[in-house]
Formats: sequence, C-alpha cells, structure tokens
Amino acid sequence: MCFLNIYPYFLLVAYKDNYMIIKPGELLASINSPADLRNLKPEQLLQVTQELRQYIIDVVSIHGGHFGASLGVVELTTALHYVFNTPYDQLVWDVGHQAYGHKILTGRREVFHTNRKYGGISGFPKRKESEYDTFGVGHSSTSISAALGMAVASKYKGEDKRQHIAVIGDGAMTGGMAFEALNHGGVANANLLVVLNDNCMSIDPNVGALKEYLTDITTSRTYNKMRDEVWKILGKISKFGPDARTIVSKIESGVKAAILKQSNLFEGLNFRYFGPIDGHDINHLVSVMEDLKHIPGPKILHVLTTKGKGFALAEKEQTKWHAPGTFDKITGEIYKKHYDAPQPPKYQDVFGHTLVELAEQNPKIMGITPAMPSGCSLNIMMAAMPDRAFDVGIAEQHAVTFSAGLATQGLVPFCNIYSSFMQRGYDQVVHDVCLQNLNVVFCLDRAGFAGADGPTHHGAYDVAYMRCIPNMVVSAPMNEQELRNLMYTASQENMGPFTIRYPRGEGVMPNWRTPLAPIQVGKGRTIQEGEEVAILTFGHVGNYAVEVCQKLAHDGIHPGHYDMRFAKPLDEELLHHIFSKYEKVITVEDGCLQGGFGSAVLEFMVDNGYTSQVKRLGIPDRIFEHGSQLELQHEAGFAPTDIENTVRELAGVPVKV
Amino acid sequence: MCFLNIYPYFLLVAYKDNYMIIKPGELLASINSPADLRNLKPEQLLQVTQELRQYIIDVVSIHGGHFGASLGVVELTTALHYVFNTPYDQLVWDVGHQAYGHKILTGRREVFHTNRKYGGISGFPKRKESEYDTFGVGHSSTSISAALGMAVASKYKGEDKRQHIAVIGDGAMTGGMAFEALNHGGVANANLLVVLNDNCMSIDPNVGALKEYLTDITTSRTYNKMRDEVWKILGKISKFGPDARTIVSKIESGVKAAILKQSNLFEGLNFRYFGPIDGHDINHLVSVMEDLKHIPGPKILHVLTTKGKGFALAEKEQTKWHAPGTFDKITGEIYKKHYDAPQPPKYQDVFGHTLVELAEQNPKIMGITPAMPSGCSLNIMMAAMPDRAFDVGIAEQHAVTFSAGLATQGLVPFCNIYSSFMQRGYDQVVHDVCLQNLNVVFCLDRAGFAGADGPTHHGAYDVAYMRCIPNMVVSAPMNEQELRNLMYTASQENMGPFTIRYPRGEGVMPNWRTPLAPIQVGKGRTIQEGEEVAILTFGHVGNYAVEVCQKLAHDGIHPGHYDMRFAKPLDEELLHHIFSKYEKVITVEDGCLQGGFGSAVLEFMVDNGYTSQVKRLGIPDRIFEHGSQLELQHEAGFAPTDIENTVRELAGVPVKV
Repeated sequence: MCFLNIYPYFLLVAYKDNYMIIKPGELLASINSPADLRNLKPEQLLQVTQELRQYIIDVVSIHGGHFGASLGVVELTTALHYVFNTPYDQLVWDVGHQAYGHKILTGRREVFHTNRKYGGISGFPKRKESEYDTFGVGHSSTSISAALGMAVASKYKGEDKRQHIAVIGDGAMTGGMAFEALNHGGVANANLLVVLNDNCMSIDPNVGALKEYLTDITTSRTYNKMRDEVWKILGKISKFGPDARTIVSKIESGVKAAILKQSNLFEGLNFRYFGPIDGHDINHLVSVMEDLKHIPGPKILHVLTTKGKGFALAEKEQTKWHAPGTFDKITGEIYKKHYDAPQPPKYQDVFGHTLVELAEQNPKIMGITPAMPSGCSLNIMMAAMPDRAFDVGIAEQHAVTFSAGLATQGLVPFCNIYSSFMQRGYDQVVHDVCLQNLNVVFCLDRAGFAGADGPTHHGAYDVAYMRCIPNMVVSAPMNEQELRNLMYTASQENMGPFTIRYPRGEGVMPNWRTPLAPIQVGKGRTIQEGEEVAILTFGHVGNYAVEVCQKLAHDGIHPGHYDMRFAKPLDEELLHHIFSKYEKVITVEDGCLQGGFGSAVLEFMVDNGYTSQVKRLGIPDRIFEHGSQLELQHEAGFAPTDIENTVRELAGVPVKV
Repeated sequence: MCFLNIYPYFLLVAYKDNYMIIKPGELLASINSPADLRNLKPEQLLQVTQELRQYIIDVVSIHGGHFGASLGVVELTTALHYVFNTPYDQLVWDVGHQAYGHKILTGRREVFHTNRKYGGISGFPKRKESEYDTFGVGHSSTSISAALGMAVASKYKGEDKRQHIAVIGDGAMTGGMAFEALNHGGVANANLLVVLNDNCMSIDPNVGALKEYLTDITTSRTYNKMRDEVWKILGKISKFGPDARTIVSKIESGVKAAILKQSNLFEGLNFRYFGPIDGHDINHLVSVMEDLKHIPGPKILHVLTTKGKGFALAEKEQTKWHAPGTFDKITGEIYKKHYDAPQPPKYQDVFGHTLVELAEQNPKIMGITPAMPSGCSLNIMMAAMPDRAFDVGIAEQHAVTFSAGLATQGLVPFCNIYSSFMQRGYDQVVHDVCLQNLNVVFCLDRAGFAGADGPTHHGAYDVAYMRCIPNMVVSAPMNEQELRNLMYTASQENMGPFTIRYPRGEGVMPNWRTPLAPIQVGKGRTIQEGEEVAILTFGHVGNYAVEVCQKLAHDGIHPGHYDMRFAKPLDEELLHHIFSKYEKVITVEDGCLQGGFGSAVLEFMVDNGYTSQVKRLGIPDRIFEHGSQLELQHEAGFAPTDIENTVRELAGVPVKV
C-alpha cells in the first residue's frame, strides 16, 4: 500500500507538533484494513459503527476538520467495506469530505489525527495516499463519471465480477456532470452501483427541483397522488357493484411497485432503482448490498442519512457543524480564539456585508452563489433580500449563464464562486459573459492557496485563465477597503465582465467599514517610491511587501512598492514609470507563475522594449499539498521572508546568516 | 434595431463579392419583421413555412452553411414568432445553427446570403446583430440558464406577462448545465417555457439514456408497461367476476393521463410537461403555444421534428447534411473541388486514422468524444473498434472525468474535443486529470481561428489555460507527420496529461502516412539556422514561416526558424541557443497573446536573464468575428505577410512600398 511508504514521516510530524493520539475502541483497534472488518460477524458491525463514530468525534473535536458529513455515513462506510471486496472492488467517494470513516477503516486510523495538517494525510481521498482511494476528489459530482470509467475498463478487460461503486450526495447530484454521467452510464452496460446518499444537504441545505423530487419519492408522494387518482375514478365506476372498491384496492397494491418503478427518474435514465432505505441501519444496508452485488448493469441505491448523525448538535445545526473547527465533545462548545483588540474580518464577510450595502443603493444588483451561501457569505444578502440573492445549487455552469441572462436585462449580478470552483464554469465565462461583454461580476473567494483543503481547492490558476479572455477585467484587493471599492467600481454602468479575487481568511483592517469610492479601472497605487528595486504586488500579498519594506528600511534598503490592483488591464502609465526608474523588479502574487500577473508584467515590459531584471514570485508549476496558507506560501517562495530575501539579493545586500 | 446600423456595410460586402441574391416567395418577401408575420391569417402560415423552407434551401445550396437543423424547425420558428410577441417576449435558441429561419423572419432576409462570410451576418444568433437575438450562442446547452435569467429578471421587475422561451434540442439536453438549469428552473417560479426540439440527433445521432427515455415517452412505452402490469394483476383477480376486466379497462383509461404525467422525468423536476406533438404541423403548434402562453411557471413542450425536413436527402443522411457546403438543390449533388494532384488531408482525418493505427498496436488506447464523432473523425475508430471508442453525448465534463477513470486502470484514453469546447471541461482537466497526473491525451481539434463558425468556436485560449496547469504537456504539430508522432509519443507509458492542439482544415503533406517515431517531450526542431532574427513558431503556422523564409532568402535576409513543438515544457536547450545567438526574436502562434506560447518564451527569457527584443505574433486581446481562417489571421496580424513584414522590420530591411 502506497500509504505505508510515508508513514514514518507522519509519526515524525505527529511527534514534533505534539499531536494528541486518541485511543480507538476495542473492535476498531483491531481493524487495520477492510479485510479485518470482513472477518467480523455481522452482529459485531453495530459495535464497529459505534466505535467508529466515537473515534471521529474524539479526533475531530481536538484536531478539527469536516465533521457532519463523515458522521452521516458511518454505517454506509462500514457496510460498503464489509460487503464489497475493496480495494479490488472500486469505491469512489464524491467530494470526499465524508470519507473520514473510510480512511480510518483502510489503514489510516493511527495517522488520522494528522488529517489536513501540513505533511499529514489529506482531508480528501487521494490516490497516492492509499490504494483504497481509487480517485482523488474535492470538487463535487465527479464520482459517477470516474466510477463509470473504471467499470468500462473492467468490462473491456473481462473482469466481469468486479464491482464499481460511486457514493454521491443529493447535493452533488445537482451538478450537471453527474447527470451527464448517468446519461452515459444508463446505456454503457457496465457494472456500476451509484449510492445516492440523500441527507437533504450540501454544505448548506440542498436546493432545487431534484431535492423536491427526492423528497417526493422518499415520501411516496407521487404514488399517493396516483392512488388518489385511482380512487377518484373508482367513484365513477361504482355502478359496477360493491366489489369494485375491493378490486381496485387489490389492483392498487399490486401495481404500486410497478408505478414506483416506472415513474422513477433514475429508472427513466435506465438505472435500476432501489430504495429509499435507512442509511443508519447497518444490518439492512449490508443485506441490501449483498443482493445488489449480484445484479449486473447500472443501478442506484437511494440511502437516507442524517448529516451529523450521533452528535445531537450537529444533527440540529448541520451547516454550522459541517466543519466546526475544534470543540468540546461533551458540551458542544465550539472553541474560538479570544483577542483583546478588534480583529480584521474575513474577506468573505466584507464581501457579504458590502454587497448588501451596495444593493440597498443600487436596485440592479443581484447575488448568485452555486451552493456556497455560508462559505462565501452570500447568506447575508439571502437573508436581507431573498428576492435578489439566489443559491442555484452545486451548478457553477448554470450560475454563470443564469447571471449572464440577468445581465442581458440590465441587472448587475455578483456571481460569487470559490476560485477553484470557477474552473467548473469556465466556458460559460468565455462564451456567455465575455464574448457578449456582459456586466457580470465574479467575486472569486479562496483565490490563491486555500490552506487545509489542499490542492483541489487551491485557487492558483484564475489570473492565468481569466486574463486571456477578451473584455475581462482581473483585479485583486490588497485589503478590505480595496475590496469594497472594487465591488463598488464593478457595479457601475457598462463595466463588462469583472473579476475580483481575494483569499480565504482575514484581511488587515479591524475598522473595515470605510466609505465607498470608485477606482479607475486599470489604475494601481503607489505604496512607496523607492530606489533600485521595485516590488509590484497583486492582492493581499501587498501587505507582506509593506511589512518587508518596513523591516528593510532599518537596514537602509528602500525598495519601491506598488499595489498594482489590476492584472488586466495593467496600469501602463505606472509601469512606464516603474520600468523607467528601476532596473530591478519583483512581482509577487498568490497565484501560478505560468501566465499569471507576473507574466502580464513581462509582456508589458518586453512589448515596450524595457530590459529590467525581473524576478517573479508566486506559485511555481507543480502541485502543492495542504497546510496552512503561510506554510504553503513559504514552500512556494513568496512568504514575507522570501520577498525580503529577493529584495536583498537584487539590491546586493544579502541577509547575514 | 441594432442590426440596421450595419446594414449598408452588408450590402457593400454583398456587392463587392458579387454574391447571388435569391428571391424569396411572395409572402416571405412581405415579412420584414415578426410583426408582419403576425398580421397574417393562420391559414396563410402553411405557405409561409413552405416559402421559408425553400428560401433556406435556395440560399444555403449556393452560399453554404448549416442546413438540416434549420430545415427541421421551419414550422416551430414560424409558430414561435407568430404566437409570441418577440422581441418583447424573449426567445433563446440553444446552439443556434438552427436559427436561419429566425434570422430570415426577423429582418435579415436580404442579407442572409452573407451568412458566415467575413463581414457578413453570423451563422449563430448574436446580440449585437439584432434585438431578436436575445442571447449569443454557439456552444450547446446554455439556453435554459439564459432564459431563466431573463425570466427571473422580468419577475423581479414585475413584468408578469412577459414570456421567456428556450428552444433546446434533445442532443443539447444531455449537456449537464441544461440539467442544472432545470433543477433551478423547477423551483424558481418564473415564467419559462422550454421547447424540447426532439429530432434524435446531435450533429451525429444522439446517444445516451435520455435519448432512450424520450423515445420511451414518445412511444408511450412506459405507459404500455404499466398497462401490462395492470392486466397481469387482473388475471389474478378474476375471482371477482366477469366485470373485473371491464372495470380495470375503465380504470386504465382514466389513469392513463395521470400515469403519463406523474411518471414524467420533467414533471419530476417540477416542469409541467406537454406533448409530444408533431413539430411540422404549423397549425397545431400555434394552437398549443397559444394555450401555453396562459400557463404561468416552468413548463416544457416536447416537439418532434425531423432534421432536414423537406429535403429528402437531408432527411435520410442527417449527419452528412448537417453542414454540407454548397450543393445542387435539384439533384442533391454536393459540390467538391477537383484537384489534379493529391491534396493534403485534414488534420482531423490524420488524427482519426492514426488513432486506429496506434490502437491496433497498443491495446491500452481508447477513444472518447463528446458528441463529435464525425466532426473530430473519431467515427473511424468507432467503426473499427466499437468496444474501444465512445461517444458520450454532449458532455465534455463527463468525457474528461470518464477518461480519467479509464486512465486510473492503466488505459490510455485519447479524449478528442474541439479547443473551444474543451473550456467546458476545464475543471475536470485540472482536478481529475492533472492533479492526479493521469495519462489522458487531449487532442484539441479546431485550435486557433475556427473560421466561419466565428468567435464562439475560435480555439484561442487553450495554450494559456492549459499551460498554467501543473503536469500538463502542451504541444502542437507543424504538419501531419508531427501530429502522428506526437500522438505516438503521448500514448507511451507514464506520459501524464498531454495536450496536442491542431487547427481546423488541411495540413501540408499529401503523403502523410509516414512511419511513426517518438518525439522527446519538450524538444523542438531547428528548421533553419539564420542570422540576426529568429522565428519561433508553434504549430501549423510554422509552415507560414517556411514560406516567408524562402521568400526573404531572395532578398538576402536569412532569419533562423525553429518549430518549437512544445509550449510546455519548453525546449530550454534550444532556447538558450536562440537567445545567445539572436538579438531579435519573433514568436508566432495561432492563439491568444495573453499568457500563450509567446508569453512562455518571455518567461524563459527573463527568468534566464536574456534581453533580446521579442515581437509576439498571435491573436490579440479582443473578440474576432467569423471569416476564413486566413482573413482572420491577417486581421490578427500573423498571416504570412505579417510574419514577413515583422522580420523585415526587425532586420531593418523594410518592404518597398
């Protein structure tokens, strides 16, 4: 197993950082792989699930991480590994923040406390971590496509008995690609089981017609309507005598199964549908799955679960307990840091409050989020102005084109998406927004290193992939005031497509409710004029440069510092000034070096015949794992010390060792 | 109407190029806007449709363009503009190559012969061309999202009676974002009519479970199954006496409507479902639409049409007649140019044949296309190896992740997608392929200017958006032999993600079946060493440089020419040689200048401390309309004459005027 190779490193990390190791229950302690689990008797499984749930609570309460999702699938996880012959049978978890139980049962129990920590195990399934992690996940709605690929490969290889299981939530099922995969899977004649984990939730409550449909089949509402129709007609045929009701009743019960089957949306797509069944009844789950193993072709098992199951507070407030941080597992108190002085707000909250403030003044403004109202803080507008703020489900593509549709009518939609999720709506940005030059504002949250969520969530590429599209403005605020002013600017008439990217986490201004003022598009700011070396920053990393400049001043080094604000259009006037004045230039960005902000500066420089020495700092061309943002920035080489060292190097004044 | 502003220009173009003007029939000649159409009596509509169909045949047979799709919706188009108050009522055409009738009825009859020509009208609906074109299209599956945006805007503005109609094909309905839009539309409580134009076709025959489902409801197969169940049960209740059959028969017919309604997939998503109805019965269409106008909320009208309707050959061979070029409208002979000597093949055909050749040798190779088997020539492999080549429907996202799933099992999928459609699967390329470093080969057809299809189809951004992703190789062949060798190289063990981009149209090698040989990844080719100026080309445009170098040699100018082959990884050894030797460098690419191949060269140059003068030729940062590829390349400034002039300028030997 790949995982074993890196095991000593984890122990080292654990030792170094003095993590608390938690003791698992007796049965759980004996399970070092699913093979151990499969040696247990069915009647022992209940205890396994109890111990597994407790272990997740114990570890997450101390070390943090996603919580509710994994608690909700403890029984499902146990049943899957008990019934199926993993890793030969292939299990794909959609999104993957529900896979903690899976990790614990597949040999990673002892290192589970390093979850999401720098150098520790990933918070998501990951191929290089374990052979049980068949497919890396993090973004939603990929599991059916991936599992179908595996199933078709098995079919091609003649591995007839191999099983392929995708576990997907009802939230993820709203993502279009899940539907695309069902459309193909329904005719591919491969051995595919889709487990629909229906808990009525994304991170926030799930929305949309599919959710209502699932409630419908769960409560047999369609069947009941059908039965009512039958009874109504029955009234009309009473002339057939007193037996009529009895006859119809017989027909009714016999036809019930047929109706439920034929009227099912998934059956419509050629998947055999089973369920809904109780996802917390371990024995029933095992027995149903045993049966399903022997049914070839595409099939769907509809399982009802409760997010946060077994931890009362988490069951009650599911969004809050999606990833609560650390907490007291007895009282449920979520630990918060206490500060003596007021702290800067999160950028996302500045976005959320400022949008409402703008919308109160400007009736054209609308808010759109694909299923991240609490993550992006659009929930503030959704509460204040429910007719103007929309959660459209896990559906980035639709979110963008729906916004474009609003914009054609003169409205100004703020489409608020995590930077890495924006990749999911890229064609729509090009084709529906930029080609038509529509005034849609893309507020890209979690731009740059996302931190503990790791590579799937790092917003590394947005500057490169947005900057190449005609008509698109690409901006990044250095602080809260700049974010507010960029939002204000983007909402003005005829601004066209406008990207504002900002990082996860806090800004720098405790008093952030500054008056709104417009910014001229394509105008940067001079933070300080200097000598010899110029630092050009894009976004929040400008604060690092400020810190560095203050420090360097003590040593008599005075670089210039410019907060460029816009990667596109560039402030050409300011750049002419900079390249005329400085022979050495450093660009700093929390984004990829290939084609990013720094490259835009190079293009300007060379196009205009300047020949300064330029050193670009940012995210180099490789995958970065998870860790704190600062750990990752340091690894990538654009943390404050890196900026300082680069200035010293260029200025010929190296730091004393 | 916006369109009128550019009208004189069209006439000029038409005059200059001596286009043949075709005379419309008597009624059609009187229709200069839908208001004129609405002045006609219902009994005149049949004649309008006959004249409209004939006009499309007359013009397209001489001037070319998409054919079958527009013929299929002549009645639907006429009915929509007759019943609805366009442009106040808002009509969105999905994809849009079926919108010729719409263009002709909305004031563009007289300029319809300039369709798809440089300076002429677009082959797709386009906002700046007409107020009747509510939303620009070209890519598939966007119409429901866009129309829903418009509908929600109307609701917000209190325009209760305004109608919003999306016309979407059954092929486009397989695209995930259509499903995302239905999921939102089903609960948005806005005034939205989705017209499902069901002709069982994408460009190629439609595929997947949804197609089967639509056949199912069209033929009442589900209902029939249900009835069979009832009759079966009936047998068991015969003890209730001879009336039983009669009773059940009564129940059956009464419940039929309820069953059909309740069991409908679209009803499941909260859309009221109507149909299926005959899409070629103009009077019935009008009467059904009149009724639907008065039904609020989300609704779907299922219309059955035949692609190519009214032109027998086109009805029979629908893929061939999707866009047949010019033809004899009487005999149906499709005109082909005749050449005395063998001509170079299309790149796409080289791809198609070479893939089969490679797959015959290497059992790991699989082929995947999202609904473009004939457009991309994967149909060659689908015919030769049906178990190894998959058309997954209009579903780029799924195509990529399905390929990733295959790759996890050691297979080597060639995922063949138009460059501009690749944008639709971008997140999947990042998240499912590159982060996991899986060996998926992306063969991007129609890279660079697409020609007559225009801005929605130009593959301008792929180098920029692919190059920024870690692990991705980005290559482009200069000719057929290079394409074959790059494909061969990409199929070797552990190559990781590999992009090969090539343009629409012909290469340069009539004898293209060259022996296969591997290419070292990241190695360019020296075409000729030279003096003073170096030309670095990426892809097919290298042939322009060859032509230019030959011409310049006569004037004693000898630039170096290097076919770089890879935008990533760059051939650093070769670049060190070039920047050491030449003070003047020209980069040429058929792609965007922001972040593209030329920018990659700049990054290398500056990172390595070189200070040559560099001039980048490629697609500048603005939208380019349709026209021939050469017309557009000339407009963009990288046609052969532009390369020549740039070399002369840098060499200080300007062309004599």
